[in-house]
Amino acid sequence: MAATELKIAYIGGGSRDWARKLMFDLARCPDLCGRIALHDIDSESAHRNEQLGNWLQDQPGVVSRWAYETVPVLDEALQGADFVIISIQPGPLELMAQEIAIVEEFGMFFPVGDTAGAPGLNRGLRSAAIYKGFAETIARICPQAWIINYSNPMSICTRTLAKVAPALKVFGCCHEVFNTQKMLAGLVGRYGGLDPAPDRRELHCNVMGINHFTWIDRCEYQGRDVLELVRHHIAQPGTVRPFTRVEVESWKDWFRSADQVKYALLPRFGLLAAAGDRHLVEFLPGFTRSIEGLFRWGVIRTPVSYRIERWRAAPEKTRDLMEGRTPFHLLGSGEEGVEQIKALAGSGELHSNVNLPNRGQIANLPLGAVVETNAHFGRDEVRPLAAGSLPPGLAPLVARHVANQELIIDAALSNDPELAFQAMFMDPANILDVDETWKMFRRLAVLNRVYLPGWKLAGPDAG
Amino acid sequence: MAATELKIAYIGGGSRDWARKLMFDLARCPDLCGRIALHDIDSESAHRNEQLGNWLQDQPGVVSRWAYETVPVLDEALQGADFVIISIQPGPLELMAQEIAIVEEFGMFFPVGDTAGAPGLNRGLRSAAIYKGFAETIARICPQAWIINYSNPMSICTRTLAKVAPALKVFGCCHEVFNTQKMLAGLVGRYGGLDPAPDRRELHCNVMGINHFTWIDRCEYQGRDVLELVRHHIAQPGTVRPFTRVEVESWKDWFRSADQVKYALLPRFGLLAAAGDRHLVEFLPGFTRSIEGLFRWGVIRTPVSYRIERWRAAPEKTRDLMEGRTPFHLLGSGEEGVEQIKALAGSGELHSNVNLPNRGQIANLPLGAVVETNAHFGRDEVRPLAAGSLPPGLAPLVARHVANQELIIDAALSNDPELAFQAMFMDPANILDVDETWKMFRRLAVLNRVYLPGWKLAGPDAG
Amino acid sequence: MAATELKIAYIGGGSRDWARKLMFDLARCPDLCGRIALHDIDSESAHRNEQLGNWLQDQPGVVSRWAYETVPVLDEALQGADFVIISIQPGPLELMAQEIAIVEEFGMFFPVGDTAGAPGLNRGLRSAAIYKGFAETIARICPQAWIINYSNPMSICTRTLAKVAPALKVFGCCHEVFNTQKMLAGLVGRYGGLDPAPDRRELHCNVMGINHFTWIDRCEYQGRDVLELVRHHIAQPGTVRPFTRVEVESWKDWFRSADQVKYALLPRFGLLAAAGDRHLVEFLPGFTRSIEGLFRWGVIRTPVSYRIERWRAAPEKTRDLMEGRTPFHLLGSGEEGVEQIKALAGSGELHSNVNLPNRGQIANLPLGAVVETNAHFGRDEVRPLAAGSLPPGLAPLVARHVANQELIIDAALSNDPELAFQAMFMDPANILDVDETWKMFRRLAVLNRVYLPGWKLAGPDAG
Amino acid sequence: MAATELKIAYIGGGSRDWARKLMFDLARCPDLCGRIALHDIDSESAHRNEQLGNWLQDQPGVVSRWAYETVPVLDEALQGADFVIISIQPGPLELMAQEIAIVEEFGMFFPVGDTAGAPGLNRGLRSAAIYKGFAETIARICPQAWIINYSNPMSICTRTLAKVAPALKVFGCCHEVFNTQKMLAGLVGRYGGLDPAPDRRELHCNVMGINHFTWIDRCEYQGRDVLELVRHHIAQPGTVRPFTRVEVESWKDWFRSADQVKYALLPRFGLLAAAGDRHLVEFLPGFTRSIEGLFRWGVIRTPVSYRIERWRAAPEKTRDLMEGRTPFHLLGSGEEGVEQIKALAGSGELHSNVNLPNRGQIANLPLGAVVETNAHFGRDEVRPLAAGSLPPGLAPLVARHVANQELIIDAALSNDPELAFQAMFMDPANILDVDETWKMFRRLAVLNRVYLPGWKLAGPDAG
Repeated sequence: MAATELKIAYIGGGSRDWARKLMFDLARCPDLCGRIALHDIDSESAHRNEQLGNWLQDQPGVVSRWAYETVPVLDEALQGADFVIISIQPGPLELMAQEIAIVEEFGMFFPVGDTAGAPGLNRGLRSAAIYKGFAETIARICPQAWIINYSNPMSICTRTLAKVAPALKVFGCCHEVFNTQKMLAGLVGRYGGLDPAPDRRELHCNVMGINHFTWIDRCEYQGRDVLELVRHHIAQPGTVRPFTRVEVESWKDWFRSADQVKYALLPRFGLLAAAGDRHLVEFLPGFTRSIEGLFRWGVIRTPVSYRIERWRAAPEKTRDLMEGRTPFHLLGSGEEGVEQIKALAGSGELHSNVNLPNRGQIANLPLGAVVETNAHFGRDEVRPLAAGSLPPGLAPLVARHVANQELIIDAALSNDPELAFQAMFMDPANILDVDETWKMFRRLAVLNRVYLPGWKLAGPDAG
Repeated sequence: MAATELKIAYIGGGSRDWARKLMFDLARCPDLCGRIALHDIDSESAHRNEQLGNWLQDQPGVVSRWAYETVPVLDEALQGADFVIISIQPGPLELMAQEIAIVEEFGMFFPVGDTAGAPGLNRGLRSAAIYKGFAETIARICPQAWIINYSNPMSICTRTLAKVAPALKVFGCCHEVFNTQKMLAGLVGRYGGLDPAPDRRELHCNVMGINHFTWIDRCEYQGRDVLELVRHHIAQPGTVRPFTRVEVESWKDWFRSADQVKYALLPRFGLLAAAGDRHLVEFLPGFTRSIEGLFRWGVIRTPVSYRIERWRAAPEKTRDLMEGRTPFHLLGSGEEGVEQIKALAGSGELHSNVNLPNRGQIANLPLGAVVETNAHFGRDEVRPLAAGSLPPGLAPLVARHVANQELIIDAALSNDPELAFQAMFMDPANILDVDETWKMFRRLAVLNRVYLPGWKLAGPDAG
Repeated sequence: MAATELKIAYIGGGSRDWARKLMFDLARCPDLCGRIALHDIDSESAHRNEQLGNWLQDQPGVVSRWAYETVPVLDEALQGADFVIISIQPGPLELMAQEIAIVEEFGMFFPVGDTAGAPGLNRGLRSAAIYKGFAETIARICPQAWIINYSNPMSICTRTLAKVAPALKVFGCCHEVFNTQKMLAGLVGRYGGLDPAPDRRELHCNVMGINHFTWIDRCEYQGRDVLELVRHHIAQPGTVRPFTRVEVESWKDWFRSADQVKYALLPRFGLLAAAGDRHLVEFLPGFTRSIEGLFRWGVIRTPVSYRIERWRAAPEKTRDLMEGRTPFHLLGSGEEGVEQIKALAGSGELHSNVNLPNRGQIANLPLGAVVETNAHFGRDEVRPLAAGSLPPGLAPLVARHVANQELIIDAALSNDPELAFQAMFMDPANILDVDETWKMFRRLAVLNRVYLPGWKLAGPDAG
Repeated sequence: MAATELKIAYIGGGSRDWARKLMFDLARCPDLCGRIALHDIDSESAHRNEQLGNWLQDQPGVVSRWAYETVPVLDEALQGADFVIISIQPGPLELMAQEIAIVEEFGMFFPVGDTAGAPGLNRGLRSAAIYKGFAETIARICPQAWIINYSNPMSICTRTLAKVAPALKVFGCCHEVFNTQKMLAGLVGRYGGLDPAPDRRELHCNVMGINHFTWIDRCEYQGRDVLELVRHHIAQPGTVRPFTRVEVESWKDWFRSADQVKYALLPRFGLLAAAGDRHLVEFLPGFTRSIEGLFRWGVIRTPVSYRIERWRAAPEKTRDLMEGRTPFHLLGSGEEGVEQIKALAGSGELHSNVNLPNRGQIANLPLGAVVETNAHFGRDEVRPLAAGSLPPGLAPLVARHVANQELIIDAALSNDPELAFQAMFMDPANILDVDETWKMFRRLAVLNRVYLPGWKLAGPDAG
């Protein structure tokens, strides 16, 4: 059977991480082929990816054909697209570093800073303003295309697309849950005497919540209750324990999760949080008040300096690869994007967790809010599975975050800073009173100035 | 891999149709084996099925082992059950004939009379009273079992189980949608030049609604929009036309659908009704006012006399088979019950339409109402796919039927006839004023007397 | 204390009934004074009212000062208005006669034909198109004004104003409930031995529903349960009985209600319908199938010929009054419009039933739908009282009518005839199948042609 | 007209504050008379009130007749009651002091500690357990009586009554909003040049929220926008300023509000908080982290020691009054309880803010939750006015508190400590992580032990 031919437009096509993963995964997929338009405000990076992508076509093991091209004008990049992939950095990484630093001055320490809490919400403001433009352009040029978002804050980005242009076919992908599934598969292996442990895909987890704040209320492997296994694991001596700064800093892995927060929440709430602890604590009260507190929970902060360094080093690593200084291995990324594209293109079906506007899949969250649950991917369709209702102790907390995201988007779309302030003040992790929050908010708003030119900052102490 | 061993309890195990289909399908499924307890208030019929089932074990082509046993006491039949199957006749068929006849005296002609409209609602009253007992007993004896209901009125029976004992794992199966899928597959074959036409399972239809009043808002085959194909079919000369009594009566098939009602509704509502026209008209205004009107639409009435005749003839047919007077063929029934059981037992997965309490799968119907949508079957789990929202012109009509079903169940469970009357009066197909409806209602209530001993019929003209 | 000075704009200022009532009531109210701009597409009628209004200023007993002026341009009439009153005829009365006649050809007999059922919905289509213009103009010229609607279909007219321009302050007044209150007051007098009977305002009725389909679930007079009294009345011999054509035709009162339908519904539903039976039957199944059936229930049809005759005779009656041929009495109308204006202007408070967008006053109807409940009138505020929830047997029926109204408005605002057809087919009083309904719908649509120039009538048999 | 004769049962009839206010207000009301049964677990206190109440009958100015009697058995006290008044202390004041102290050890400083936050929620647990008993007994003995609750936590107490026995007629009264109305009336006087300022009742405020966390979105006095006046007041130099510890401690008024928090929130949220700042900060993030922070906002903590002292001194003050050592003045309390009783008994009508199960009066809070809005009091009826919807920035915060209250009640009624823990952890004012919260929670749970004998405290570190 011939490969299906596709046109993919990649917004943020200069991406130094996601783009590369996509190229490799596509190269390994014999069912698809076609053209990829790389669009980026950083044309140089896009061009470098174009070269890498085309170089890849001639490497051993590659089983599909793709032509990569840098397209500086967005309208042109989108022309005729079947799929639009978005993975952008909303503003330079230095901005991200600054917003995290400002919030730390006010006594709140967010280990990631890209999703929830003051830094995540501020990043969301910029993102909503940028994604508004994407939504309008896509709706004009290629309204039938499937749009896959990879950027954070996932819920805000995806929801902005759907809110600005409701007819767009949009979803968001995140690998965060995969790691927890791997952890669970590991426990199945360890306590079930299976070596190697089963693949994470063999576990059946019901996922429900919002991106980076998802929960698993049921997980089954071959008839075994995996959450029961986690409870057993927690009961083992040494599983639950305080961590130290020295220990955590020794990891040298800025994305690792010690799962201590998950372990503490499971017996209290009956559900297992599905995101890494770094993300998890940002949605909760009480964890982000001090760096020492984070260490004690085994939560590492992912330094933006590391992200910058990684970003800077990427071109040389690419050159090394293309020029043979690094050996070439056509490894899969572990992401599911290409499998999803394949299913949507009509080759096979897939179940996976995904971010989609709520059409009932979580019965007690507002319709339209972007939520994360399992979904079934088939030809030209992503249909969520009904995950049920969040328990009464969690639903209002998740609803608060959903409301914050909505306020942030509305603040950006309607040029109303007060709405954004309300989100920041009412955020569950906020520990500042109304005046302190306002001071922090104004400093953050200055950072967003070029992204929100329509904002006027009024109020008692507006400068 | 060894077959999974199961205990199945069959309530209504004397069934002369569903039970036989199940036996044959089980006999063809190598993944399952076990014991089946046949329970029925008609012990003789159950005993006959026991004999047939055990006889079957030695027939050619049978690939699984099942031991059938008649169990006269319900509690014993349920003991240790992994699955409970229910297919009962709520009261003798003669009662069904009587209730249809009474309603016809009042000028309303329901072609089936087992689901909606006055006869269906009246049957629902009896069923709710009977199913209350089932729910309580199952919850006491085998609360972990999966319960599969086949009886009509499907929504009322299934909802009663879930309402009386909310922790039960219950769903309802109906093949009605399959026929429409076959019709659609036929059109795909005919207009797409495919011979044979594709199997109905290769079409991807989104199903939404309530049993026998389901709708398809999207149907796709290999990238083709099948609803568009139906519109094309409708536009062909001769597709849409009035039928005559002579023509319809010549069919000699009491379950056939000419699909004329479906064809008339599609351009008006944008969705395709998924049940046969016999059922469909019972949910709508205007079709059931006269027999001639039904014929004009190609709607045949399924005579209860035929059902009685079929029921009476069944034992002899069984004898003929077991004694070799009829040749034995181990044909599948076309039902999906056994595949569902298999998936729930952990062997494989399945997507199919099914009746389940609404946990969000239809976003604009009440939570808890039993609705029909697609669902994913996996090990120990049936999870509906989010079907979305019914369009604003249909949602209130479906909601009215949902409300009627709820009123009927509450009327039975709380011994309040007024609630049942309200359902009958407000039913969309009702054409009687409040006094005429009351007269009809009281005559029907008399039929239900033994099933609802707690009812007191009060009111102006209560006898 | 000085009278409050107001500018009132009267759309439909040539009204031959409501306008006159308003003039008289204003003339009796010493707290208000000001200017009234009469605007009408029938300038002659407006001019006649201008003369009557100004003539009135010099008559005995008049205690307030109002200057009336005909203003042919709507924008000018609205300039500076504190209140906008709307009482229009959407199209000539002859049109109304035609739509009722067409529907009768199809076997449905609506005694009023201005609110529900096919004639009411068709009238609603025209009205929504006209009121869209009013809403936009008022929002442009005098957005702060209070808008009081008197025209039918009340819910559709009022909802269109609020839907097109959500910031407008709008409500709708109808005296229909007053008559039922008078009937109840009469029963209190009769069975309580009070002569005269108490004033209807001394009874405390909780009103809930939609205009002309309102219900009373609680009514109290001095600690007595008035609904209990109605039940007592019903139990008296002769209260409930069939009526004859001769008897009903002998009334010579085209607006009278024999209350037989109310009496029949109360024991079945537990609530008392609050509108006259003429209106009530239009919302229900089963009553409008024949003229004889209506007579049997004591329901009189209000002939449009009578309305036309009354309309034609009005100018001469006015002339007779102004020229002294008819004696002048400054009687109040019994309407509450002026008292409401007074309260809104800050003089006194008032409780009355009123039509308002639902902001929770009926907990189980959609937010935004125009519903009728009691409300508190105070300075610049009409705040509904929380009426509670409709009972489960009625709520879905009322919801169906609410959905119909919404479909009609959307059909008019978005030029989509299918939505209007869906409303007409699904209407609870409809007895036609889908093809018959379509035939009737198309004939009615032709009548509306000039009001809905954007409509294209497609479909199988579109001409 | 003769006074209406009533039987009132007073649970907590030994109350040293509310009971006395009631006695004085009743003594001043000529429309009512009757008997009052004083029931209290502290019989001595009840007996003292009995003596005071009966002594009062002979004092100058008293215009009604009431017979007071101590009734030690609750069933007897309730016999024949038309009204049940509840004002109890759930556990001794020393317990309240302890729970506030424990929470302070964990770094959270709640100025009142009787409604929200960890101390309020803990008090709620005890209260729910106690009120469950009240609900059951009242439903058994006098189900037709009106129940008026005065105790805190108001929402939890009132909701428990309604949840345990849904048919009870129950509401809750709180004077907290009156003080803000007085403050507003003062501003009207000051900036409008009115001396004296108008009575608070002449202002029309729309109140919405939950007890002690209510909001005013509209306030009008004679056509003036009073919230605009507050904004003007805030803009005056010196209105908004930091307070010092010395200044606040110099007040010697433990219930005073400097309104600084209100002033800070109004420009940010557009609504005026209606409770005193002491209460307000308990519902918000960021204010309760330090004592100094509270002082800076002019928030005084009401010491439980003061409450204990006042409670101890009350008997002597009563003796002084009865024995003539203190001059007797028959002053009204400023509370509205007696006026409400009067209206319910059929003498006059009243508008006031009140706590009632939500039947739609706040459209975006759950039905059934106890909310505070204005209501209309008439004979045997309290009907809330539709207050509308909370704005999107506030609604999820209020919803969180509503959910917390529901979790607390369910924790008490179903003996499930985890639910209570979830409320405490997720509380918006909480700054502790999950383990710290658990430690605090367990210490508080010990205090509640005798009130919740069915609780078992499980979990990792359960002792």
